[in-house]
Order: sequence, then C-alpha cells, then structure tokens
Amino acid sequence: MEMASLRVLPATSAAFPPDLRAFRPRSCSRTSFTSQASTSTRTVLPSNKRVFPRKQLYRASQDAVSILHSTEEAEKPLAGTSFPLQDVLEAQQFDRELLNSIFEVAQQMEEIEKERDSSRTHVLEGFLMATLFYEPSTRTRLSFESAMKRLGGEVLTTENAREFSSAAKGETLEDTIRTVEGYADLIVLRHFDSGAAKRAAEVANVPVINAGDGPGQHPTQALLDMYTIQREIGRLDNIKVGLVGDLANGRTVRSLAYLLARYSGVKIFFVSPDVVKMKDDIKEYLDSRNVDWEESADLMDVASQCDVVYQTRIQRERFGDRIDLYNEARGKYIVDSKVMEVLQPHAVILHPLPRLDEITVDVDADPRAAYFRQAKNGLYIRMALIKLLLLGW
Amino acid sequence: MEMASLRVLPATSAAFPPDLRAFRPRSCSRTSFTSQASTSTRTVLPSNKRVFPRKQLYRASQDAVSILHSTEEAEKPLAGTSFPLQDVLEAQQFDRELLNSIFEVAQQMEEIEKERDSSRTHVLEGFLMATLFYEPSTRTRLSFESAMKRLGGEVLTTENAREFSSAAKGETLEDTIRTVEGYADLIVLRHFDSGAAKRAAEVANVPVINAGDGPGQHPTQALLDMYTIQREIGRLDNIKVGLVGDLANGRTVRSLAYLLARYSGVKIFFVSPDVVKMKDDIKEYLDSRNVDWEESADLMDVASQCDVVYQTRIQRERFGDRIDLYNEARGKYIVDSKVMEVLQPHAVILHPLPRLDEITVDVDADPRAAYFRQAKNGLYIRMALIKLLLLGW
Amino acid sequence: MEMASLRVLPATSAAFPPDLRAFRPRSCSRTSFTSQASTSTRTVLPSNKRVFPRKQLYRASQDAVSILHSTEEAEKPLAGTSFPLQDVLEAQQFDRELLNSIFEVAQQMEEIEKERDSSRTHVLEGFLMATLFYEPSTRTRLSFESAMKRLGGEVLTTENAREFSSAAKGETLEDTIRTVEGYADLIVLRHFDSGAAKRAAEVANVPVINAGDGPGQHPTQALLDMYTIQREIGRLDNIKVGLVGDLANGRTVRSLAYLLARYSGVKIFFVSPDVVKMKDDIKEYLDSRNVDWEESADLMDVASQCDVVYQTRIQRERFGDRIDLYNEARGKYIVDSKVMEVLQPHAVILHPLPRLDEITVDVDADPRAAYFRQAKNGLYIRMALIKLLLLGW
Repeated sequence: MEMASLRVLPATSAAFPPDLRAFRPRSCSRTSFTSQASTSTRTVLPSNKRVFPRKQLYRASQDAVSILHSTEEAEKPLAGTSFPLQDVLEAQQFDRELLNSIFEVAQQMEEIEKERDSSRTHVLEGFLMATLFYEPSTRTRLSFESAMKRLGGEVLTTENAREFSSAAKGETLEDTIRTVEGYADLIVLRHFDSGAAKRAAEVANVPVINAGDGPGQHPTQALLDMYTIQREIGRLDNIKVGLVGDLANGRTVRSLAYLLARYSGVKIFFVSPDVVKMKDDIKEYLDSRNVDWEESADLMDVASQCDVVYQTRIQRERFGDRIDLYNEARGKYIVDSKVMEVLQPHAVILHPLPRLDEITVDVDADPRAAYFRQAKNGLYIRMALIKLLLLGW
Repeated sequence: MEMASLRVLPATSAAFPPDLRAFRPRSCSRTSFTSQASTSTRTVLPSNKRVFPRKQLYRASQDAVSILHSTEEAEKPLAGTSFPLQDVLEAQQFDRELLNSIFEVAQQMEEIEKERDSSRTHVLEGFLMATLFYEPSTRTRLSFESAMKRLGGEVLTTENAREFSSAAKGETLEDTIRTVEGYADLIVLRHFDSGAAKRAAEVANVPVINAGDGPGQHPTQALLDMYTIQREIGRLDNIKVGLVGDLANGRTVRSLAYLLARYSGVKIFFVSPDVVKMKDDIKEYLDSRNVDWEESADLMDVASQCDVVYQTRIQRERFGDRIDLYNEARGKYIVDSKVMEVLQPHAVILHPLPRLDEITVDVDADPRAAYFRQAKNGLYIRMALIKLLLLGW
Repeated sequence: MEMASLRVLPATSAAFPPDLRAFRPRSCSRTSFTSQASTSTRTVLPSNKRVFPRKQLYRASQDAVSILHSTEEAEKPLAGTSFPLQDVLEAQQFDRELLNSIFEVAQQMEEIEKERDSSRTHVLEGFLMATLFYEPSTRTRLSFESAMKRLGGEVLTTENAREFSSAAKGETLEDTIRTVEGYADLIVLRHFDSGAAKRAAEVANVPVINAGDGPGQHPTQALLDMYTIQREIGRLDNIKVGLVGDLANGRTVRSLAYLLARYSGVKIFFVSPDVVKMKDDIKEYLDSRNVDWEESADLMDVASQCDVVYQTRIQRERFGDRIDLYNEARGKYIVDSKVMEVLQPHAVILHPLPRLDEITVDVDADPRAAYFRQAKNGLYIRMALIKLLLLGW
C-alpha cells in the first residue's frame, strides 16, 4: 500500500534524503514491503484493495460524489476520480497539492455537518468502520467515530484491542487485521508500536488509517493542524509559526514542521527548554528544503512576530524520576494574558490538546485562542479522509 | 444553562430555603455560574445553545413533532414549542406541571417503542449523542443508548472517560466537554464528582444530561421512579409511600421524597435501620411543604397501609470495616412473601436495582413486583427527555 | 426456551445417551427448567417471546423475507415460516436438516454482504441487539456486531458486563437479563460460567445467543466450522477430518466431532499429545452413532489422507506450572510447509484462531490455508442466525 502511495506521489518519497531515514519508522524499508506484501496480498486473499474500492468508487461517483459536488461539478476536475492513497499512514504521504485538495473536501464536510443537509449526510450509508485501539485515546476515537457517523456510516469499536495480542491469546497484529478486515470496510488503528499502521496496511485489503502508532506517526493530527492554520490565517505560504514546548518528543510539532516545509516563505521559530530541543533531523530537513528557521528563548518576542503560536505540553513521562528537570521545563514557556497582549490581532494560539497549565484558562476567552476550533477541525479532516478513501473524490 | 432553567422555573429555585443549601451541590452558587458562563460561552464558542437548537426545533416542529402528535395535534397546546430546560441536571429543575407534561411524552414513547411504528422511530435521525462515563454504569448507559437508538439517533460511547483526566493526560472536565461537544449534539455525563454535570453544562453548547454525579444527583432515576408510580397507581396526589432501607445514603430516595413534595395529600413513611436514617434536611424540607411523614420500625404495618413500598439496597461500602453493623442493618427489613401477604392488591413494590437479598426472589413472580417494569420505564423517560431537549415538545 | 427447542427437534434431545449427561451443562436438567421458567415467564413478564416475535415475523414475512427470496420464492418452501429455535444455546440443538437450511441462509448472507445490495441490507432496520460480554472476546463481539449492522440493525455493546455482578453491585445474571431485555430485541451473551446462556434464556423474553459460556458451549463457532467445510469441500457426508492439537480442552473440536456425527460416511482422526487426548465421552458418542474414528500420532500420514485438517492451539493456561509439559505438547504437531506438501490439492487447513506457532506463517500464502476465510464465515453464520431468530425463514 505504502509502495502504491509512494508511486503515486514520487515527490513525497523523493522528499527523503538518506540522512532522514532515522525520521521514518523502521518497518518502512522497501524490501520488507515487497516481500511480505507479495506473499500476503497476492496469494492468500482476494485483493479487494484493487478491486473492491474501485467498484465502490464507480457506484460512489454516481450518487455520493455527484451529491457532494451537486452545484459546483464544473469546478471539480477531480470529482469521481480515485483518491491516490490506499491508506493514511504518515505525514510524508501528503504533498502540497494533495493537502490543498483534501482541505477543500474538509471544508465541504464542515458545511455538511453544520447544515445537517440530510441528502449529503448519508453518502457513507452501508459502510462499516472498525476503530481498533490498542491503547485508549478517547478523544481521537470519538473524533473518528463522529466523522463516520456524520456521513451515515456505521462503526465497530474497541478500546480493548490489546486483548487480541494478550499473553493468553498471543495473536500477531497481522492475524488480527486479517480477521477484522472481514468485518469492516475501513480500519482505524491506534497502536503503541511505531510502524504498526504500516504493518497493518501491508496485509489489509481494506484501507487503514493510522490514528497514532506510539512514538511514530499521527498523520490526521498533522493534517488538522495544517487545515486549522489555513482556516484561521487564510493561507499556508508566507507565514511565521512558533513551535513552543516539548519539541524533542512531540510528534505533532515534528510532523507540522515537516508539512510546513511544503509551502514557500515559511519561517519557523523553535521555543523550548534546552532538555527538549527540536532534534537535528528536522532542522537538517528544513535546511534541505531552504526553510528559514531559528531557535529562540524569548517567547514574547516570537509571539509578537508570529501568525501562529503552536503550544505543546511538556510530557512528564519523558523525564523519568528527574521531576526537578520536568518542573523547570514545564514552567518555562506559558501562554498567558501577557503573551496575548503582544500577539498580533490576526494571529492565533494552537494546541493539540490536552493542555495542562501551559496555556492559562483566562486565555480561553480570547477569540485568538483557536485550540478548541482546532479540535473541531479534526472532525472535518477525518470526515474528508474517510470519504476519500471509501468513495474517492 | 442552570441560570436559564431556573429563570424558566422560578418556583423550582424558590423551593430552596437557606437551610437546604447543603442539599444542593456546591458549584450551584449563582456567582460561580454567571462569571464562568459569561467568559466561556459568550466569547470563546459560537453559542449553539441559543441558535442551533432553535434551528433544529424549527425543522423538528415540521416533521418530528407533527409525526409524534399526528392524530391528536389539537389536544397538544405545547406541540412545537421549546422545552424549558437546556440541560437536565437535578431533580429540583422539575415542578409538578413540567413532570406531568414529560410523563405524557414518556407514554407516547412507550407506544412508539411497542408498536415499532417506523414513521415515529426516526425522529432523531441525524442526531448524535455522546455517553461520557467517568465511572462504569452499564445499566444506565445501555438505557440511554437504547433510548437514543429507539428514536433513530446515533451514539458515541465511552466507559473510559476517566482517561481524559488521567495523570498522563490531566485534562479538566471543562476542556473535555469543549472537545466532545464538537462531536455530538447531546452529552450524557456520568461522573464521580458531585456537581460535575453542572460544571459541564456551564461550558457546553449542547444539552447535557446528568446520568449521576457521585453522591450528587441522578435526576433521570428520580423521574422514572415518579413516572412508575403514576403508571402503576394511576396518580401522584393522595398516595402513601414507604421508603425502606438505606435512607441516609440513597440519593434516589432523597430525590423521590423531594419530588413527592410537589404533589398534594402525600404521606411518606421512613423505614430504615438507625444507622442509615433519613437525614434532617429532607425532613425539614417536607415540613416546609406541609408534607405528612413519619418514621416507623414496623415494615409489615407500613406495607399494609402504603400504595408504594420503595425498597433500597443497604450499601456495604458505607460501613467501612464495621461489617457487623452492615449485616445487622442489611438483614433488618426484607421484602418477602410475608410482606406481600399484607400488601394491598393495588399496591406495588419498587426498587432502583440492583437488588441483593433485600427483596427475596420468590417475590418476582407477584404481579405487584414492579421493579423490572420500573427499569423499563427508565427507557421511556430517557427517550422523552432526549427528544424534548433536541426537538422540543 | 430449551424445552421448546427440544420439543421442536426431538431428534436432537434424543441424541443424548445417558452416558453423555456429563457432556451437557448442569443447568440443563429438565426440572430446573420448568420450575424456574414457569415462575419467571408466566407471571412476571408479558411473554414477548411467544407474542412479539410472531408479530415481528408476520411483518417480516411480508417485506424482509420476500426481499431476501425475491427471485427464488418458489424454491423456498420455508420462506416466512417460523425458525424452530427461540435461542441459540448449544450445538446439540442443531440436527442435519436444520444445519443445511441455516447454511443456505448463510450463503444468501454472503451474497448480501458482497453485493452491498441496499435493498437487502436493511431487513433488520429498527432492531436492537445487546452484546453482553462478561469477559472480553473482541473477535467474537466484532463478528456479531458486524453481522447485525450488515443487515441494518443497531447494537448496544458492553465488554464490561462483569460490573453488573461486581461485589459492589452483586446482581444475579437473571436480574441483569430481565433489565437488559427491556433495552434490546436480542441478547448475545458471553460469560465465564458454563450454563450461563441457558440461565439467561430461561428468564429472557427475547432471543439469547450463546457467544461462549466458559468451558461450556460456543455454538456459533461450531456452526461456522461446519459451514466452512461445506463451502470449502462442497459436502459434509463422506469426508475425512483430522482434529489436531488440544482435543481434551478445546470445546471447538468437541462440538465439531459432535456435529460431524450427524452426517454419514465421516471418518475422524484424533492427533494430539498424550496429555491432551480427546476424552471418552465423545469417543463413546461417536461409537453410538457408528462414526468411524481413530487416534494417530502421525500428522503427516493423517494430513495425506484427510479432506480437512483442523488445527488447534495448545492452551498454556491448562498446564499450570508444568511449562515443560506445555512446551513438549506445543511443539509436537505443527502445520508447516512439509505438511502442506503431503496435503491433497482439494484439502484445507482450518483453525479457530487465534493461532500462535502451531501453523507456521509461510503456510498463510497457500490457497489451502482456509482459516481466515473460516473467520469470515463466522460473519455469515451470525448474520443468518440473527436474521432467523428475529424474522424467521
């Protein structure tokens, strides 16, 4: 599946200089792909992934898509054509062109959800999505399930997927996926192992969406962050973005930096305690794409210059028993009323949530506090991706 | 939201003499309301609660309501008008008039559920309810989810909401609600903290139903108890009710006593072991409403006089390591075949369930054992409340 | 309910020689049935089971069934008639005739699921199924829920049913069922106690499906195994089946042996480590039905003769701290490429899943590896049983 997506988007794969291998989950090595994929998909199972979705797509392009684009058919050259991705596994799959097309669909989803136009809220009727969560993440699970149901689809849910591979049962992820794909048309996977989503996609004959695989990827979060900037600021080119907090461990800021590099005239500021600085792989990648970036210790100064201040939580669990370091890091850069005073009128504060005290509660009342709108945008992005994977454009 | 409901039902708020403050959850103080509410709802979020439901209501009054009252339009002066409550938080919100109107709708729901009239089982199609349970209560959760689905609505469910506020995540209830309200049209909240439902309602822009907040309130239980008496005895005025068992800790009997005081000619008997006697706040409240009550140690005598015997479970967890006291209290008042012999033919036995041995199993076969019908009534009351909050009368 | 099913299928009940009593769960004794059933169903609750489903059936026979058999009405003498079982509790309820009829419906379900013919995927619209799981079994739960949703039905789900009977709550299974039946039209029960499904069926006024009750029964697994053999080999008479692995504790192989005895010209091979040999009750039963069987220690020889090799997992939990015995037993009979070399071209490998290493991964690529198709067949069998219990033939 990854192979396929890379074939479709050479720019994407080309975008990885050797020195970025470390940045990509291990299991992504070419060889492992072809070998396993060939054995698993060619012989064992009827390759739905090639047949079934296209069949769906055909049916879909008639009703669903025509419904979606009812008025503006003309303007939609893509309408009814196939979505280039078979799975959503990592931020690297999305180039600038694809992001913009997805964001257009996300905005249509926003209308559908708000208008409650029943003619457009049934496009996924008869489709079944399985949310297979190996670790609980209620926020993400509810967002995906709401997305599916807002489009008329149905959901099979489990927060208990770890039980599949529990000592007593001891099933491999691959076996679990081969079983669950028989019950659903789409699998949303949350797993504690980096690369788990790729392993699932390799054997699955239905689309797989990565809802976070441990320290690995969480692509729908990265997309909703970009979509929020687009919606709030009105553009993705020529923007100044301050990434604040835990930049060493936060996969969201890493993915965000990666995707921002697809746009031009972007300036990125890294503001973080020394112990959780942004790592070199991303800095080198930004250099390789000629993206202007600098590190700063002065949040006020950065806030006064930026269009977007992206605050993140310092993750206690990363500090082990060095609680002293944690507390020092945690208290260092707080977004509070003082920061809001210097923030430009058109600028916004983002945060992937949950937040502790890195943004003070009094900031919530400020219209420039966009983090709850950002969470809501996760719904629209997921509605868009689910629809695109099952029905195409 | 509470403000609103209180404004609509002055009688309700007026019903609290100063000495009953203790009876009401802390967070209910006026000041805390206005202050927080103003910051949270006015500025941060588009106030759906005022706009969106009215918009829904408009659509609803056309199809849904007209369907519901198809034949008897004329008799329904309320049809199509707005429901006075924006949230269901505590028994105190319901006065006699409102209770009776809700019970009428509940009885319509009973017909809908039994007839399976498909024209009336789709009124909530397109609506999404989130059941956000911070502690498991499968009985209550399934009852709410069945109610929503019996009317064509969809459900997002979690029994794992505690994870939102878990050490690792550490999110406030307010932040969780602001996120979840983006995914659903209605939130059913079960929480371990008294007053949690009010806190949720203060920030939520969608209706919130309190499905039990710790030692606090469980209003839908109180309503289904009253509805069951109405259905089984045929009236709520001029009835004799015996409240038996743990009256000190049982929130259901406290709420029931409170709601019974809204009707005239009611006589209440308290039958309980000394260690779990009914507390003074309720007794004083009944006096303030001129409700006749007495304490009795003779269950047989009370059972022979009452229209309703409401048995409750002695909660072991309240006795700590005083198991001797627990066992003494527990064995003291049992509803068995002897009690049924003296019970009047038209009278009924109620119990909020689950029951241990405070009602012997042989009693189940007696038509006057109404506790499973009572559980079923919970479905009709919840169908009614969900429909009223989302579509109005 | 069991009474009823036995009345309808005398052959089935007759099929139990005295010496097989041990093979049947205790609670199945006649007396316990009548006594309890009479008290519980006659007096307490309106006996939906007799009234309600027939009412449903009437409606159903018009739309649903006519839809299902649209073209081939003529060939379906059963169409619109009632399903003989009120509950699905144990493999013993199914005789040869009933199995074959169910398999026909299962095959229709396969078409419905694959064609996505929306006119046939709504037959269970308006029906609600509760999956009441006292122990997690995500695989089984998802299979049942997918089955219900593929036919347009809705689901109430809990993996947390143990909470009903938890120390704090301490409710009996019977009370829980009496409550839950008020919320749903069908109950799928998974429980840790043998005989729990029968106890539930005795009090329930809606159909109950046993999704596994501890060491007891798991009838839908037995049916899907038989259906898979029918689909893969094309017949159930005159086949050679090798049962491999843990034959002492595996309820699936025991049920399979039992059901195979309903067909003629069947030869069964038992291949297992000495510590987990097939027990005498089954061997005696096979003798009583003149079914040819033999024990063998040579998997290669058996594999070369059989139409079906049914491999099972050696269950570690059965060996306590004798890990040495476990490891010896576990490594003894592995299905690998060597076994596939001697396996006949038309033969298949089955496994109830999950598998550990008793089938090597390289076997998955072989078209004769049928265990994932077998898992998928579970969906079709469950679709068929749910439809038959709710709508009849």
